Amino acid sequence: MDAARHILILGGDGYLGWTAAMHFSARGYAVTAVDNYFRREACRAEGIDFLYPVPRLPERSATWQKLGGAPITVVEADLAVAANMRALFEQEGYERMTGARWPGKPLAVLHLAEQPSAPYSLLREETTSFTVINNLGVTTNLLCAVRDLSPDSQIVHIGTMGEYGTPNIDIEEGWLEIEHKGRKDTFLFPRQASSVYHTTKIMDTDLMWYFVRAFGLAITDLMQGPVYGMETVESALDPGLLPLFNYDDLFGTVLNRFIVQVVAGYPLTIYGKGGQTRGYINIRDTMQCLQVAVEKPAKRGELRILNQITETFSVLDLAERVRKAGARRGLDVAIDHVPNPRTEAEEHYYNPAYSGLRELGVTPHPLTDEVLDGMLRHVLEHKDAIRPEIIFPDRNVGGQSRR
Amino acid sequence: MDAARHILILGGDGYLGWTAAMHFSARGYAVTAVDNYFRREACRAEGIDFLYPVPRLPERSATWQKLGGAPITVVEADLAVAANMRALFEQEGYERMTGARWPGKPLAVLHLAEQPSAPYSLLREETTSFTVINNLGVTTNLLCAVRDLSPDSQIVHIGTMGEYGTPNIDIEEGWLEIEHKGRKDTFLFPRQASSVYHTTKIMDTDLMWYFVRAFGLAITDLMQGPVYGMETVESALDPGLLPLFNYDDLFGTVLNRFIVQVVAGYPLTIYGKGGQTRGYINIRDTMQCLQVAVEKPAKRGELRILNQITETFSVLDLAERVRKAGARRGLDVAIDHVPNPRTEAEEHYYNPAYSGLRELGVTPHPLTDEVLDGMLRHVLEHKDAIRPEIIFPDRNVGGQSRR
Repeated sequence: MDAARHILILGGDGYLGWTAAMHFSARGYAVTAVDNYFRREACRAEGIDFLYPVPRLPERSATWQKLGGAPITVVEADLAVAANMRALFEQEGYERMTGARWPGKPLAVLHLAEQPSAPYSLLREETTSFTVINNLGVTTNLLCAVRDLSPDSQIVHIGTMGEYGTPNIDIEEGWLEIEHKGRKDTFLFPRQASSVYHTTKIMDTDLMWYFVRAFGLAITDLMQGPVYGMETVESALDPGLLPLFNYDDLFGTVLNRFIVQVVAGYPLTIYGKGGQTRGYINIRDTMQCLQVAVEKPAKRGELRILNQITETFSVLDLAERVRKAGARRGLDVAIDHVPNPRTEAEEHYYNPAYSGLRELGVTPHPLTDEVLDGMLRHVLEHKDAIRPEIIFPDRNVGGQSRR
Repeated sequence: MDAARHILILGGDGYLGWTAAMHFSARGYAVTAVDNYFRREACRAEGIDFLYPVPRLPERSATWQKLGGAPITVVEADLAVAANMRALFEQEGYERMTGARWPGKPLAVLHLAEQPSAPYSLLREETTSFTVINNLGVTTNLLCAVRDLSPDSQIVHIGTMGEYGTPNIDIEEGWLEIEHKGRKDTFLFPRQASSVYHTTKIMDTDLMWYFVRAFGLAITDLMQGPVYGMETVESALDPGLLPLFNYDDLFGTVLNRFIVQVVAGYPLTIYGKGGQTRGYINIRDTMQCLQVAVEKPAKRGELRILNQITETFSVLDLAERVRKAGARRGLDVAIDHVPNPRTEAEEHYYNPAYSGLRELGVTPHPLTDEVLDGMLRHVLEHKDAIRPEIIFPDRNVGGQSRR
């Protein structure tokens, strides 16, 4: 196996992690996927089901191989433990941990091993504390391990557009030149997020920027908007290859949840006027973005930040599109405006730049009626499995926005 | 005891923590000092002595009371454990933990319970990881406990001027109005630090700013420069009341170390040209700053940021002053310029604002010849205890700046 083509995926069981594992495997990379199954355990603990059963990594990897894919090495490990992280970057540790042959130092490490839910980060004191300690702990361990053992491996981190919040100025891609009292300097674009989860991503940025300057690491930070969809070329091959699909209030993302609500006959709920505008991206495009980040890497000593969205919509626009897509299939739901429990602006300026990934070669799949209909069709197949009580449980999560 | 006058000091055994405990006690406040003795243990583990023996909290508290001070309640506890933090804000937990009577919800919490050394944060992977997890863990626990149990208690946090780094624009007090493409908004002043320790303070700022916006906490963040000196009105009363005094490469701060070097006959070492400019503050002025922060508190929903320095000097200026002060006592040492092991600018623009604390009533004690001579006199008393081998041990700490 070619050492230069090893992709290490931290958080390889996740919605994006497993999808990326197949994506890179299908394109000739040797893939290692690591996960501690945190999200599955948190969902079980909170009484949350996925829309359909999702086998664990060994079974998914076996299915992938049965269908002709190259072996994907999978391993269960908690990467908040420094020794586990280090083991992944050394032949002996890697082989002991995975039972597989060392594919060489990774060309890139995709860092997706973070607690990804804003509402979960605000559910209880323990979940708040877990989010901070887990996300920063894993990031610290990764940065130290790459610095000490594999400094030529590019780190590709998934940030979030939520780091920027909704400033009253145009959002640039990560950086901003500031002129103040006649002098100039360039800084990280100012960040202020609206949940503890989102704030851990800001803290990741601070720590990565320090490691890039002090130790010359090569890092790409992809500032992603909410992702939707489940099908990629690879995951469509077999139902056993589909990614985790949450539609609950903790781990579900907005568009995926809307689709389930239409299928289940629930009104689409909008906070206040619904003018809250965000950038969105299809899971297929997230895969393209990860691929261009790997194949056109950041240089040593560079923190490259790219805004990973393809379109922006207000929540009301999004709900309208989903409502119409449902109506075309005879599924009629209303749009309900409820008082906003969050401390956020319901109408605000929002003008993010997001040309960088396109310039690197990503071709966006916009949110067309066809795409919406494809999602509806998929969810309709699992209509009977939908548990309406987990869509809006009676739960206080501190009134927060999700990614 | 008046509930409105309770001051809770997290990190109460530290250089500033214990000094602040006496300062507030002498001014009629009920004081509780909490510490896990991390710094003492880290010093022991690394073979580092203080300049003079420093009794633990119970003994210092007894000495203080013997000299006529009001009782200072002291307790050993690790505040990275959420249950310990919460206990401090509830009568039952407080009384169980401290064995003392509940003085009521704190008027203010001084958050000094962080690993405070830049070089220690870069010593080994474990110390890096400890610094991130401890500092962010304690801050998270504090923010959650105050939000849930004592939202009217002001948090007074010690940040560092090092959060700002050395930007090419004037450093304002915490915030900056930015105009970009014809639109304006106000943001946290951009931050980029030069160690993991300093970066944890940036991450604290991010988290505090989120909690202030989401939950209306009242927080004052004091962006402190390196502190020097050991004597305050209170600590001068008895040798058993003096604060921890480090002169080693890990926990010693620059001016305190220079004084010990002069007394021990060591040349003062300057990295490169010595143009690195920073803001400094006398420990007496730090006490004044803490007091005005408590007595003129931030409002609920306000993150008030004040730059806590009284003067700026280049390292070369500082060394020259110390050299001259030594010469006046017949202590002759040279100034050595050595190649800079750090990734920092040796000459740079540096123009920080620091009028806010003065406007609140702080009267600065500048670094006069008298002050320097007082420090020299103190250190001379302990001349025989100085262990030259801990001033510059053969240790690689990744080439970093200290606070």
